[in-house]
Amino acid sequence: MPYPETTDAFCVTDIKKWSEFTRQEVPLKKFEEDDIDIAVDACGVCASDVHTITGGWGEEIPLPLCVGHEIIGKAIKVGSKVKNIKVGDRVGVGAQIGADLTCGNCKADQENYCPNSIDTYGAPYPDGTISQGGYSSHVRAHQYFTFKIPDALETSLAAPMLCAGLTSYSPLKRLGAGPGKKVAIVGLGGLGHFGVLFSNALGAETYVISHSPSKKEDAMKLGAKDFIDTSKKNWAQPWKFTFDFVINTADATDRFNMDDYFSVLKVNGTFHMVGFPDKPLPTLMAQQFAPNGCYLGASHIGNRPEMEEMLELAAKQNIKSWVQTIDLSEKGCKEAVERVYKNDNVRFRFTLINYDKVFGKRT
Amino acid sequence: MPYPETTDAFCVTDIKKWSEFTRQEVPLKKFEEDDIDIAVDACGVCASDVHTITGGWGEEIPLPLCVGHEIIGKAIKVGSKVKNIKVGDRVGVGAQIGADLTCGNCKADQENYCPNSIDTYGAPYPDGTISQGGYSSHVRAHQYFTFKIPDALETSLAAPMLCAGLTSYSPLKRLGAGPGKKVAIVGLGGLGHFGVLFSNALGAETYVISHSPSKKEDAMKLGAKDFIDTSKKNWAQPWKFTFDFVINTADATDRFNMDDYFSVLKVNGTFHMVGFPDKPLPTLMAQQFAPNGCYLGASHIGNRPEMEEMLELAAKQNIKSWVQTIDLSEKGCKEAVERVYKNDNVRFRFTLINYDKVFGKRT
Repeated sequence: MPYPETTDAFCVTDIKKWSEFTRQEVPLKKFEEDDIDIAVDACGVCASDVHTITGGWGEEIPLPLCVGHEIIGKAIKVGSKVKNIKVGDRVGVGAQIGADLTCGNCKADQENYCPNSIDTYGAPYPDGTISQGGYSSHVRAHQYFTFKIPDALETSLAAPMLCAGLTSYSPLKRLGAGPGKKVAIVGLGGLGHFGVLFSNALGAETYVISHSPSKKEDAMKLGAKDFIDTSKKNWAQPWKFTFDFVINTADATDRFNMDDYFSVLKVNGTFHMVGFPDKPLPTLMAQQFAPNGCYLGASHIGNRPEMEEMLELAAKQNIKSWVQTIDLSEKGCKEAVERVYKNDNVRFRFTLINYDKVFGKRT
Repeated sequence: MPYPETTDAFCVTDIKKWSEFTRQEVPLKKFEEDDIDIAVDACGVCASDVHTITGGWGEEIPLPLCVGHEIIGKAIKVGSKVKNIKVGDRVGVGAQIGADLTCGNCKADQENYCPNSIDTYGAPYPDGTISQGGYSSHVRAHQYFTFKIPDALETSLAAPMLCAGLTSYSPLKRLGAGPGKKVAIVGLGGLGHFGVLFSNALGAETYVISHSPSKKEDAMKLGAKDFIDTSKKNWAQPWKFTFDFVINTADATDRFNMDDYFSVLKVNGTFHMVGFPDKPLPTLMAQQFAPNGCYLGASHIGNRPEMEEMLELAAKQNIKSWVQTIDLSEKGCKEAVERVYKNDNVRFRFTLINYDKVFGKRT
């Protein structure tokens, strides 16, 4: 059974062979009045994809599974209740594809914290169907989680904004990045490079903290005011009480000396994590927060208004993600996830493209 | 050498015998133009005193040491630069007795986070003298850390406000306790009971979270709207996404299921710790903050404006600390610290009193 019952998907079928992708048809949820069918044209390769298929986050994953939640494509069918999207529109879907839209959080524009949230891949719909991601021909998405992509944004560059971009943008916004604020971004990868781009775009003075001095040049090109090299002894000393907040995008937080990272925060500043490593945080004592009364926290993607704002900001300020494209194929998927896993010179995001070559033009 | 060179102090001389107090003269810092000499009349017994003398916080402590940092007494000598205090005034000193008063933090009214802060006891002054606390005849304090006590406040009830009160008040204020806000206080001890009193006084709807159902009656008397009993299974379930913030005053955080405590917070809510247990926090993963994008943090006492505000609020609203008084003596100090250590029916603070009986009237 082909589309519209299924999507033609590059799937992982065994987490022990997590980089071996098998092309197969997997079921789509039943089409409902709020749904939009999207012929996928591009999909970013997110670290979440790799954490998921390697079993790094420790959860059981439903197999076969098609990952990918930085999806851009063309709307080819829209449900009767869909308001702002019409057939032919270029649209995007990020890491969330469903929510109850009726709970207190949803009503307060906190749908990314809805207890009935549905992830774009690997999550059961109420009808039992498992959601499937964007390494595939088609995605079926609720209109609330489908976004028009501004014309000014190029498809392959806009795709990674839908998860990595939003995940960095949301805490920047909520923590008040703007003129007069000093923000540090820890780690310069997919998330981190968006952190620098968007923090700058919002008007904050932005710094990069990294253990790889080789990344200094890129940090400065992205617009950082300065580069703080944690491989140097006593690196934190000159920066004590400096930053309003720090966005930590690193995967290596388990090896951090948290006292150092906390110490660069202003009084009551925030160390905010957007990367979710496989390993726990270093052991913490309550009193480690006391020298400046700081906070530690994390967030999960962002909400719809933030997504729209971010895309608009990116279009208006001509913000360009740093992307390397890879043609969609078994080989392409394998290369992408393996290089993300090994952190092998990913600067700073892969986008899978040329879907028409695999699936043909879909209408 | 008696006062003014020394203070007549009940001291701990061996952390292995931490509840045996020896009365002896210990040196006071050199009197300077900003200093005030205080003839002590009362001193609260803070959990910090016990953490310190038992070596629980793991630091080396200078011996002999006289603890006590909830001090009220009479100003008997004021330096030439002292502005707002005159001889004869009833004044208080809390847990901080010095700071550089010139750094960025001090200038921003964050002197409680001054890197050159001096604790009221056990801390070296620049001249090498160790600061000594309020289980003693006299305290010498910088005017910035000396507070006039409003007439409406009774000495034995006001004393514990100077550390426990302020420590609870400061985060309530900074996190925005007030009308329309829901606040939960974890633990009903010295800090917790102030948390309830002041959160209520500020206008927030205040709840108590505790593992001791026996404390429900006291919680309600203190003004709690409801009591949440964590000894019940699935206690957090009915309270998901409820509180703007939680003030954790408990000493048992190492045994908490943090997911439960985080889950009762609204989106982007804060779990704020004011108790500093001897043991580390439970192991945490970054993703544990993700279900509601919450924050974890702590604070260290409060600043001068907050102290003044709190004392005024207490006077205006006739807020009464729940205090049991104990006469100052070797035996009295021993009983107080042992009962605080064992958490033996302390409801909710001891204040050492009747200093005149030990030291006579001092002028």
